[in-house]
Amino acid sequence: MRIGIVGGGAVGLLTAAYMSQSAHVTIYTRRHEQAEKLCANGLTVICGDEKTTHRVQATPFVCETNDDVLFMAVKQYDLTNILTTHVHMLQANAIIFLQNGMGHIRYVSRLPHEHIALAVVEHGALKVDDTTVVHTGVGQTKWSVWRGEQHAFSFLLRTSSRFPFQYVDDWETMLLEKLMVNVLINPLTALLRVPNGMLVAHDPYRQAMEQLFHEVASILHIEQRERIWQHVQTICRQTAANRSSMLRDIESGRRTEIDAILAYVIERANEQHIPAPISTFLYSLVKGKELEGGKGR
Amino acid sequence: MRIGIVGGGAVGLLTAAYMSQSAHVTIYTRRHEQAEKLCANGLTVICGDEKTTHRVQATPFVCETNDDVLFMAVKQYDLTNILTTHVHMLQANAIIFLQNGMGHIRYVSRLPHEHIALAVVEHGALKVDDTTVVHTGVGQTKWSVWRGEQHAFSFLLRTSSRFPFQYVDDWETMLLEKLMVNVLINPLTALLRVPNGMLVAHDPYRQAMEQLFHEVASILHIEQRERIWQHVQTICRQTAANRSSMLRDIESGRRTEIDAILAYVIERANEQHIPAPISTFLYSLVKGKELEGGKGR
Repeated sequence: MRIGIVGGGAVGLLTAAYMSQSAHVTIYTRRHEQAEKLCANGLTVICGDEKTTHRVQATPFVCETNDDVLFMAVKQYDLTNILTTHVHMLQANAIIFLQNGMGHIRYVSRLPHEHIALAVVEHGALKVDDTTVVHTGVGQTKWSVWRGEQHAFSFLLRTSSRFPFQYVDDWETMLLEKLMVNVLINPLTALLRVPNGMLVAHDPYRQAMEQLFHEVASILHIEQRERIWQHVQTICRQTAANRSSMLRDIESGRRTEIDAILAYVIERANEQHIPAPISTFLYSLVKGKELEGGKGR
Repeated sequence: MRIGIVGGGAVGLLTAAYMSQSAHVTIYTRRHEQAEKLCANGLTVICGDEKTTHRVQATPFVCETNDDVLFMAVKQYDLTNILTTHVHMLQANAIIFLQNGMGHIRYVSRLPHEHIALAVVEHGALKVDDTTVVHTGVGQTKWSVWRGEQHAFSFLLRTSSRFPFQYVDDWETMLLEKLMVNVLINPLTALLRVPNGMLVAHDPYRQAMEQLFHEVASILHIEQRERIWQHVQTICRQTAANRSSMLRDIESGRRTEIDAILAYVIERANEQHIPAPISTFLYSLVKGKELEGGKGR
């Protein structure tokens, strides 16, 4: 079986490593240099005390793909470009999307592929260099079929117990819950420059997060508010020492996923003529930090 | 003429230094140690390249005051304590209040003194140590009579041209404008850890500040919105390199004046049943930073 992974970031490398245990994996990178290093040195995963190196193929994403299954593991803001300009080259029987947010759904519907799945990654992963990823937290990947048949993805049942997949029926609820987690934890930790646990350790921070929660829950018509609010707080506690991906992006002067998550919420609010004062305010503050380019400390 | 200055912070020391040029000044400090140092070493002001040392009296604020005029130069949160428990010791013909915010007005009305003035300090001042203050920006002190006669404060006309006083008729507008400046610049710079100028240099920051401006202006029924919005932006540009007092408080792990300025706005909103989502959110974030105690960097 041939599996293609589009994206050489933390999630792409982690997925590639575990998939390579039972399939022929090709990683499609943005940069030539990373592809060359991966072909030459292999792909190393560090999980606890264990360090394993896997042989993988890698090539820049300029040529056509020709795999049985494609994992789309790029950030949402890169995905738009790939789906609109390179879609004809994405030959595969099945595609799995691993993005945060929900903004990519509108593009997915235009794809010609027979089987399409949506997934959310609940692992902790930190890219150390072009060929090394640290598996900082073993979680799971929830997935759901968006188009086609579930059996087209049956190979997901055979992955390592350290990289399990869990099927859920309702892709919209799955994505909405992940979106809520991302909306609440990422911008606040990035703005405040604190690890996830601080958001529930200090009462004023929790109160601010709760204010944001109620605003966003109204905009997205979230049912079971209390359950999801508890879920978000649990994740803060379970990942207390983690620095969120958005915080790391800000600290490194990289572009963040703020548009995929918070701008998406503001757009939904505008469509419905619902006010979104806190989301809009927070969005501007994080955008400003992004502009400072990591030099704001 | 005997002038008492209650408070040995940046504003208290600056006021004491310039007043000591034409009057007998006593500084009332919180700590014994500072009073002793001021008596022994004098009070030094650095303004540009000039450095001048002034002889002053100083004593801890435990004894009674016996001055012709008292300047109240403590933070608003210390003022409440002084006015409610030590008011009988504040013997003076006239009192001038130099606080930010408007929360102290309710206490002022209970004072027995014949002449009471309210003032807002528009100087830049940075306390270096217990006996040294840097005059980082020469501005002015606006003042207005709250009770009694203007002539009771005629000595203000004789102060140094580096420390001018300007009379205004309407104390409420004067305090409201200063409150708007403080509400908009202080919490945002403290949260974002940026100098004042950054709030207008980056469009997203200016947009966030403008959102906050409109919310607060509605709560406080600010007239002439456009003029005041321009005024706030002008101050950001004029003090572009300054780090606000609240930012310095957060960085040093000190208590901030967030309650005197933003909690006051939220109280006014609650009284009128006007929503204050952004003010409330921002208040919680700064309170959390205060709790982190300067260790959040």
